[in-house]
Amino acid sequence: MNDYSPLLETLRQIVGSDNLLRSGDLSAWELDWRRRQRGKALAVVRPANTEEVAAVVRACAAAQVGVVPQGGNTGMVLGSIPDGSGTQIVLSLQRMNRVRVLDAANRTITLDAGCVLQSVQEICADAGFLFPLRMASEGSCTIGGNLGTNAGGTQVVRYGNARELCLGLEVVTPQGAIWDGLTGLRKDNTGYDLRHLLIGSEGTLGVITAAVMKLYPLPRVQLTAFAAVPSLEAAIDLLGLAHEQLDSGLSGFEIMGHFALSLVGRHFPHLRLPLQESKTPYNVLIEYSSQDTEADVHARFESLMTFAMERGYVNDAIVAKSSTQARQLWHVRESIPLAQAQEGLNIKHDIALAASRIAAFVQQTDALLAQAYPGVRLVNYGHLGDGNLHYNVQAPENCDAATFLQENESAVHDLVYGQVARHQGSISAEHGIGSLKRDVLVQYKPPQALAMMRAIKHALDPLNTMNPGRVIQITNNN
Amino acid sequence: MNDYSPLLETLRQIVGSDNLLRSGDLSAWELDWRRRQRGKALAVVRPANTEEVAAVVRACAAAQVGVVPQGGNTGMVLGSIPDGSGTQIVLSLQRMNRVRVLDAANRTITLDAGCVLQSVQEICADAGFLFPLRMASEGSCTIGGNLGTNAGGTQVVRYGNARELCLGLEVVTPQGAIWDGLTGLRKDNTGYDLRHLLIGSEGTLGVITAAVMKLYPLPRVQLTAFAAVPSLEAAIDLLGLAHEQLDSGLSGFEIMGHFALSLVGRHFPHLRLPLQESKTPYNVLIEYSSQDTEADVHARFESLMTFAMERGYVNDAIVAKSSTQARQLWHVRESIPLAQAQEGLNIKHDIALAASRIAAFVQQTDALLAQAYPGVRLVNYGHLGDGNLHYNVQAPENCDAATFLQENESAVHDLVYGQVARHQGSISAEHGIGSLKRDVLVQYKPPQALAMMRAIKHALDPLNTMNPGRVIQITNNN
Repeated sequence: MNDYSPLLETLRQIVGSDNLLRSGDLSAWELDWRRRQRGKALAVVRPANTEEVAAVVRACAAAQVGVVPQGGNTGMVLGSIPDGSGTQIVLSLQRMNRVRVLDAANRTITLDAGCVLQSVQEICADAGFLFPLRMASEGSCTIGGNLGTNAGGTQVVRYGNARELCLGLEVVTPQGAIWDGLTGLRKDNTGYDLRHLLIGSEGTLGVITAAVMKLYPLPRVQLTAFAAVPSLEAAIDLLGLAHEQLDSGLSGFEIMGHFALSLVGRHFPHLRLPLQESKTPYNVLIEYSSQDTEADVHARFESLMTFAMERGYVNDAIVAKSSTQARQLWHVRESIPLAQAQEGLNIKHDIALAASRIAAFVQQTDALLAQAYPGVRLVNYGHLGDGNLHYNVQAPENCDAATFLQENESAVHDLVYGQVARHQGSISAEHGIGSLKRDVLVQYKPPQALAMMRAIKHALDPLNTMNPGRVIQITNNN
Repeated sequence: MNDYSPLLETLRQIVGSDNLLRSGDLSAWELDWRRRQRGKALAVVRPANTEEVAAVVRACAAAQVGVVPQGGNTGMVLGSIPDGSGTQIVLSLQRMNRVRVLDAANRTITLDAGCVLQSVQEICADAGFLFPLRMASEGSCTIGGNLGTNAGGTQVVRYGNARELCLGLEVVTPQGAIWDGLTGLRKDNTGYDLRHLLIGSEGTLGVITAAVMKLYPLPRVQLTAFAAVPSLEAAIDLLGLAHEQLDSGLSGFEIMGHFALSLVGRHFPHLRLPLQESKTPYNVLIEYSSQDTEADVHARFESLMTFAMERGYVNDAIVAKSSTQARQLWHVRESIPLAQAQEGLNIKHDIALAASRIAAFVQQTDALLAQAYPGVRLVNYGHLGDGNLHYNVQAPENCDAATFLQENESAVHDLVYGQVARHQGSISAEHGIGSLKRDVLVQYKPPQALAMMRAIKHALDPLNTMNPGRVIQITNNN
């Protein structure tokens, strides 16, 4: 049994007693966001600045103790809680929440990693800019976590993932050195793109301590609409048409299966579900953002819808008449995961497919699941504009959900991921790998890619102390 | 002295005698684009497909012979020609020029690496799509080279660099394995982003053999304008205003210094230079692309210009009245490098700065150069929308340019790059490092970043056979 007292004493000297937590209720740091797993930390360490992060990482490397970087702890894949051994440090970035610089001329903002997403959105809006990363957990998640996991959300069709919004990083390396890459440049071809390597590496190659992020003009007009579509094929056709006619004005394109929406109706009866009389298998939510006049925007959208109806892509549509009504439409979409949780446990898949493959994938997979699990219910919704479906499997109506999951979760994953692989899709579109999908990844990622990942992890973190066991497993050579 | 006959015989068996070139005029592969350096190849190898590339790379790895991947050989930094030793293989991808798939629903095109950029633009336009990568060398450069160097060009302000246009790669690893990452997904958070690591690595981590690239709708209306601005500060203000009012409609924003334009007038007197009566220190070329009507686009642009003139950002402006006139305006801009070459040898810098730093950088650096080299002439132009200046130094008028370069090139580089570093800029915005800037890079890149680059290079290419000596120097451990 290791004696951790010298390390703990060193950490106490670095961050102070108040910021080295070992007792009391540590749920906020040890329990995962979906409350499915609880880890046990050797300590929760809360540094105040980058130098303290570097000193903590150096001390842990010297003691060969694993470091689990954590932002808002809102991850979906068990990537930000410690394992159950009580031998890993949680490195919480939450105290580092300063805006360093808002550079209006460069249209960038430089942020500490622990800044909460929603507060960043608000600060930017107050300065007259849009910060376009938007997702359900925005009240808790942090910029560092967003970048560590390359978070997605609802505006990706226009602005890209967290990755595409980032122009530079400050990183503490696994050896505890500080790399300052906070340049904010839009072009920089000076060697390997370490920024993109760190983004999405889920804390396994270093700790992101700050970032330079892009800002955009606030749209003058935003139009939000619901459209009932006769099929998934029609939704894809509508997406193509919307791209062609609205180009980058298309800022949101969400799909909601009939059953997914019906759960919202069942569990949140106070919410008004639009277009329910049309009983179409799918609805889409479209958001169109523009610098044009209100009249131009409405005219262009109406022409799009008229054309789409003539072609049979759309059966019916309503356009929000106010920003309040627009928020209500988004609220219906965003209530799906909550309604689904109310309905009971379910088997989640966060998958991505090429637009040209989606309809065939869903048709085949729906059929295979119905055949294998009679009465199974499919909650299918997500960011269709990015080819990203949350394709979730709910137990049959009169079946105990917990038992169904216990007996079938693994086989259902196999069936769905096998189909994803057949259609050259991704088994994790926006949630990442963490420890939840680490072993599944090995089955579906090409072996050449896994070999490169292992070589990189080993080269940059040879002691395997940075978020060990997440994303990719390597053996310690030391 | 090594005996290369067994390797050459193996390569001949892989690609056939016709595609193993050892004699005759090999200038196309051995001489660099700017005709400043000539290498000597052990052989030029021209594989027909990915399997042949992999076999060639395996054979060279086994013989520990360096492989120099090459597309159109239009690079600016001596990254795609062999060294002078006669011991490196040029691996030309030019025969691999098939379009594999154009997926209209997914808005992607999958291309062999050797496809010539201009032919890709044309194929996409014929299919009703815009492929928005555009640069001076587009008639010769290839997609593989564009990605290997993360090429930039004139549309980056709207569509990003080559990197941002790529959704997947096929790569032959330094060991000669084939990694198929041609998924075409817009979201894929399954481990480290190997795509972004390979893009911009200039062939030092593997050979890009194919890519999936994004397509965009063809703009319905394009408006091109020249504007005379009173200062660089005013140009930056105009850029900010254009972003705010046109948002992603802003598809080009180029700056041209007075002296740069005057060289066009001197060496291409048949070209009509617009706005010359205003004698302002800078002109900008603005391109605005939209799906709106011609009338809307003109109205919005006029309102932008009126506002800009009221604020003093712009002295005078003209808008092209036809696509022919628009091409003429672009032609003036694109003639600057040619006019500069006519004027004589010059010292080139391809730099990037944050928009908020550009004016101060130029003012200070102009002054320092004028002080150190009385009569020196500054050819300053480039992609201001991306903060990318081609800040070139021309010998004083009555001075022998060759002598001036011989005596001062290195000191001028030091002065300019020192200033770039002081303003946290990049010493290579879009051209890359190659062998030309490899030793300079070591002076200006943070040591932590260099250490990570070396570790990655060593991990993925331990024999150092992939484009050895370019970008980053490592020592062979074998």
